[in-house]
Amino acid sequence: MTHPEDDPLYQGLKVNKGIAQPPSVNPYLKNRAKRRSYSVNEYVDGILDGNIPLLSQAVTLVESAKPEHQDMAQAIIEKCLPHSGNAIRVGITGVPGAGKSTSIDAFGMYLLELGHKLAVLAIDPSSERSKGSILGDKTRMEKLSMEQNAFIRPSPSAGSLGGVARKTRETIILCEAAGFNYVFVETVGVGQSETAVHSMVDFFLLIQLAGTGDELQGIKRGIMEMADGIVINKADGDNIEKAKMAKRQLKNALHLYPLPDSGWTPEVLTYSGYYKLNIGGVWDMVHRYIDFVKQNGFFEKKRNEQSKYWMYETINERLKNDFYRNPAIEKLMPRLENEVLSARKSSFVAAKEALDEYYTLKNKF
Amino acid sequence: MTHPEDDPLYQGLKVNKGIAQPPSVNPYLKNRAKRRSYSVNEYVDGILDGNIPLLSQAVTLVESAKPEHQDMAQAIIEKCLPHSGNAIRVGITGVPGAGKSTSIDAFGMYLLELGHKLAVLAIDPSSERSKGSILGDKTRMEKLSMEQNAFIRPSPSAGSLGGVARKTRETIILCEAAGFNYVFVETVGVGQSETAVHSMVDFFLLIQLAGTGDELQGIKRGIMEMADGIVINKADGDNIEKAKMAKRQLKNALHLYPLPDSGWTPEVLTYSGYYKLNIGGVWDMVHRYIDFVKQNGFFEKKRNEQSKYWMYETINERLKNDFYRNPAIEKLMPRLENEVLSARKSSFVAAKEALDEYYTLKNKF
Repeated sequence: MTHPEDDPLYQGLKVNKGIAQPPSVNPYLKNRAKRRSYSVNEYVDGILDGNIPLLSQAVTLVESAKPEHQDMAQAIIEKCLPHSGNAIRVGITGVPGAGKSTSIDAFGMYLLELGHKLAVLAIDPSSERSKGSILGDKTRMEKLSMEQNAFIRPSPSAGSLGGVARKTRETIILCEAAGFNYVFVETVGVGQSETAVHSMVDFFLLIQLAGTGDELQGIKRGIMEMADGIVINKADGDNIEKAKMAKRQLKNALHLYPLPDSGWTPEVLTYSGYYKLNIGGVWDMVHRYIDFVKQNGFFEKKRNEQSKYWMYETINERLKNDFYRNPAIEKLMPRLENEVLSARKSSFVAAKEALDEYYTLKNKF
Repeated sequence: MTHPEDDPLYQGLKVNKGIAQPPSVNPYLKNRAKRRSYSVNEYVDGILDGNIPLLSQAVTLVESAKPEHQDMAQAIIEKCLPHSGNAIRVGITGVPGAGKSTSIDAFGMYLLELGHKLAVLAIDPSSERSKGSILGDKTRMEKLSMEQNAFIRPSPSAGSLGGVARKTRETIILCEAAGFNYVFVETVGVGQSETAVHSMVDFFLLIQLAGTGDELQGIKRGIMEMADGIVINKADGDNIEKAKMAKRQLKNALHLYPLPDSGWTPEVLTYSGYYKLNIGGVWDMVHRYIDFVKQNGFFEKKRNEQSKYWMYETINERLKNDFYRNPAIEKLMPRLENEVLSARKSSFVAAKEALDEYYTLKNKF
């Protein structure tokens, strides 16, 4: 049992202004951890009121695998939808060691000081394997994690990349409804999750390190092509010249790519997350981009294309959920899996058996 | 109308030894192109007999989107399954320009001269976009395409990567049942298709070019990690020294990766596809690997893991097919897509509408 002071939810309760909560509870009472259950409308009202603990609990529903939680989450999302869409959504990626945490801390504090509210989400499909997400961990963003106007949420950890991405996408809706007008979606620049992030953000920011050739190898070509802006971190002290050279190299490399659909030529900038140098320059670039694509119509077009993508993703996810969460299928799959793993049954025969069972059940009702 | 001599199917008919076919048909008769319909058993018997035109037509059924073709394809696959699994399956990848076609031509001729039968398949998810696959195009493999013991099939072009990959995986079964004891699955080293290929082959071969640093950037890190062998092409003439240097560099780079689950240390070799230098060395490596993993049990283990993967892939594909090919859904989706694209409906509401329609229909029967 963790000390209540260490429980982020409990911490949130203390700053909760929307809905009355007991100011303190005896941590040794057995039912202390038992949260009150809220109705869909209570959740929605709380979220629209900017109530962080309720937002946080609603996100937990989104991430839950339980069908009753999923139903509730969907009802909340649907009611929040008309109040969403008003944030600038920024995808942030970079290889491990590029200084993403420090940068997000610096970027976030910069935006907060301008009076904005920021949600930091993450997509890390590897988090399931490693049993714990490295992304979005509050402790990595020292200053931001102390701020009331920042909502930091680690990557949902269960399920496929598609499932994890859908949950993050739904969380964006809730955060926007709660009044967060900037949303960061963080990911590591080594996996396939960048495509998923790209499908839910307005601006895709790639953090690179100062240095030559070698460092560029770490990032995949496809990710470079997705970037609306590349920012070279640690451009400070002795490193400034190297950063400038990397900037020239990256600019040259970008020239080889065709102009993206946005009509925007990706920019390359240097900055220092740690020493907070040129943070404003980075955000001027982001805002220049947003103005540009809002004027040429690409902003709306991209958001609508993303909606189409998510319509299909949502359908595909639900089809799978309906199958794999069917009690008969849940019982059947481990046996089939064993039979396939021990070569007693072919993958096709096993798949057919499961599908026949499912569709027979479906048609029974 | 193409000249019958140019029609690969017609060419196949001439060499067909399994089932009696008219030796020649008048190309100007209207029903010339009308193929005879075969029963599942006729297909299976033909395939097991090594009848190439029937194999080719069965693969067309596998690739077809029509439900009646799909049903037939599944029945054929199920009957071919007990006769499959006996080939050495090799995934071959490399960036465009690495000389994949020339290499496959040389590798294939080498294996054919040893008395083997080779099927060359491909996975190219971009083929849908570009309306025509660049991979598996017969004309790229000059010598191999003239050989009776080589079956070359371009990438299936319709559908998602998952769908394309499943079709290729199913085609492997049919080819093996038809007596092909080597199967190549070719892909371009720039997409996400390598993971799919990796899930269906025993050995993953990466073709690289002689040269320094820059050339390595073209290949993604994840692909390097998948490779069981890296072979450096164009190690001929003035290029030999450069190739040797690349070999040293790649060996050093591979040292940074953890030993793969197979327990096999990936090897790096040089060769020349064009001048046919060290082709035998490449295949000695492949066979050394196969012996190694057959002895330590990894060969069987990997195949069974792949079967498990394909059980889930097959289920997921069928769930989607059942949905998207439902006539009511087929009619509904274009309207929903338009509403989402014009921002008149959110992705979630549209998805819900389609799913409700589908599950209501399902429960009606």
